[in-house]
Amino acid sequence: VKPAKTIEWTGRAVRLLDQTILPAKTKFLTIREEKAMWEAIRMLRVRGAPAIGVSAAYGLYLGVASRKPATLKSFRTTARRVADYLATSRPTAVNLFWALDRCMAVVDALSGETTAKQALARLLDEAKAIHAEDEITCDQIGQHGAPLLAGITGVLTHCNTGALATAGIGTALGVILTAARKAKFTVYADETRPLLQGARLTAWELQRAGIETRLVTDSMAATVLQRGLAQAVIVGADRIAANGDAANKIGTMPLAIVAAHFKVPFYVAAPLSTFDLAIKSGAEIPIEERGREEIVKFGGTEVAPRGIGVFAPAFDVTPAKFIAGIVTEKGVLRAPYGKSIKAAFGG
Amino acid sequence: VKPAKTIEWTGRAVRLLDQTILPAKTKFLTIREEKAMWEAIRMLRVRGAPAIGVSAAYGLYLGVASRKPATLKSFRTTARRVADYLATSRPTAVNLFWALDRCMAVVDALSGETTAKQALARLLDEAKAIHAEDEITCDQIGQHGAPLLAGITGVLTHCNTGALATAGIGTALGVILTAARKAKFTVYADETRPLLQGARLTAWELQRAGIETRLVTDSMAATVLQRGLAQAVIVGADRIAANGDAANKIGTMPLAIVAAHFKVPFYVAAPLSTFDLAIKSGAEIPIEERGREEIVKFGGTEVAPRGIGVFAPAFDVTPAKFIAGIVTEKGVLRAPYGKSIKAAFGG
Repeated sequence: VKPAKTIEWTGRAVRLLDQTILPAKTKFLTIREEKAMWEAIRMLRVRGAPAIGVSAAYGLYLGVASRKPATLKSFRTTARRVADYLATSRPTAVNLFWALDRCMAVVDALSGETTAKQALARLLDEAKAIHAEDEITCDQIGQHGAPLLAGITGVLTHCNTGALATAGIGTALGVILTAARKAKFTVYADETRPLLQGARLTAWELQRAGIETRLVTDSMAATVLQRGLAQAVIVGADRIAANGDAANKIGTMPLAIVAAHFKVPFYVAAPLSTFDLAIKSGAEIPIEERGREEIVKFGGTEVAPRGIGVFAPAFDVTPAKFIAGIVTEKGVLRAPYGKSIKAAFGG
Repeated sequence: VKPAKTIEWTGRAVRLLDQTILPAKTKFLTIREEKAMWEAIRMLRVRGAPAIGVSAAYGLYLGVASRKPATLKSFRTTARRVADYLATSRPTAVNLFWALDRCMAVVDALSGETTAKQALARLLDEAKAIHAEDEITCDQIGQHGAPLLAGITGVLTHCNTGALATAGIGTALGVILTAARKAKFTVYADETRPLLQGARLTAWELQRAGIETRLVTDSMAATVLQRGLAQAVIVGADRIAANGDAANKIGTMPLAIVAAHFKVPFYVAAPLSTFDLAIKSGAEIPIEERGREEIVKFGGTEVAPRGIGVFAPAFDVTPAKFIAGIVTEKGVLRAPYGKSIKAAFGG
């Protein structure tokens, strides 16, 4: 069973699976302009760094197309405005900026003779290319990463990094799914508070794939490692600095520290589009803080006293020294990451 | 504002605050016999190691009294049976067994001339003594522990260890409340999945006490420590081995490992009744596993796909080496714990 496509281009609009109400309901949104895309990204209706990149690229095209620019000049101005706007939807996942930058590079490179119509077609082609490449990238990450899980009886993952988070089979979950084609093991899935992407999305994807799954609260992951129930941890990333420090869903960093304590290898799986070579270390990654509603409510039910204060960082940064390997479409990068990352980018 | 008394002896029954529905509803249960007390402990209507001990002692009295034994012999047989039954309610918190053993020691020490009526009165007196002593013990723990929090701007705690978990001001939360009388700081409260004792109970107690509180998901605690927002961690315990290894609510052990990584002192606060000198190390502490409903549902809302497997340990064990000090009614015990614990018991 294949999970429903999380992003589809219908020829005129983007069809997005609304992930905020999964697994209870499967509802699709039809996105026709950039404001709806901004809202979908902001509200996590589409989430996962690669999926956010693909969505932003389509959003840019839709935003420009809906304004029907008559000249190349107005096309360019509109594209810049729409790209700047979409860039404000979420701050941490670099794939958002990477995809917008890649599309804007196409815009910048257009020759002066290009008509607005031709320019629009080029923008759509670029979005489609980003979409298609992500699917291939996921497969490559899966192939490179699967051997890391050879011989295990259990693996632990955090948040959701599967088909719902990408345009393909996923990053970390893609590695797990690829390895599971040839071997049998149990996947321990952190529920991933506050938004329960693990309980709602990862557990759902694994169940549909017929893989033995044990859902745990985030606080139980350490016991899974302590008891040797999982012999590897693999997670995704939202932004990786030039030194290998990796921002990912809140709760990843303590998991890496605990894995190191129990000598369980901790892997990150991410496409090269998740790397931000402009920043030296994780200290420079902006960490999104989200609203109190996500903490004080659980599945729609209020679970904390009214008016209580919260602190709600959505991501944390795992220092490179805790990462045993970073699985990319170009292979598994190893420490020292400064060197191996540079090499992966051909530097 | 004082939180409502979690356990009260009415003269004929125990009045228990049902903690499973706090803070949404304040409902009291009237417990008249041991089966209702077993259910209340099992279902966490009363929870927190010291409160479980007090409840078990009253439950033993109620169970024997409700059978109206006519002779000392039948009193003794009944008491043994009721104590054995109550001991099956929950496996990890040693205060349950400690309180039952203490009451049964009174039963065993009764002279042959004692009437059943006198024996019953002695049993009730012992339960009341355990209850009263716990209140004093909490105050002493608060006094001994408060200096550990001198000069901080923030402290982090896990689960609930306050007035709801004890017969007094609490253990770890008692230390926090005592320190807060003289200084101003922020308390970061882990929500404590799966049963959210932090969000529902600790946040509620802190709010009523007028203390600045920030609720965080368990996965955010590491970021609180990384950013230096809290300069100390203090938690309770359900059972402490002779070597200082401490079982406590699931999620405590990774918190201790992370605190060590960020060089933040990690303290445990517990009465001597929480120590189990019969066991050498934490490896011998039985860890309760609970049902899947607590993980896959909340407040009636399903948050995971139907039929998904779970792994649900309710406690974990923090190795003594991660504990900077154990605050007891006799003072703060320090490493090497084998020695300091023995000394606290006068050994």
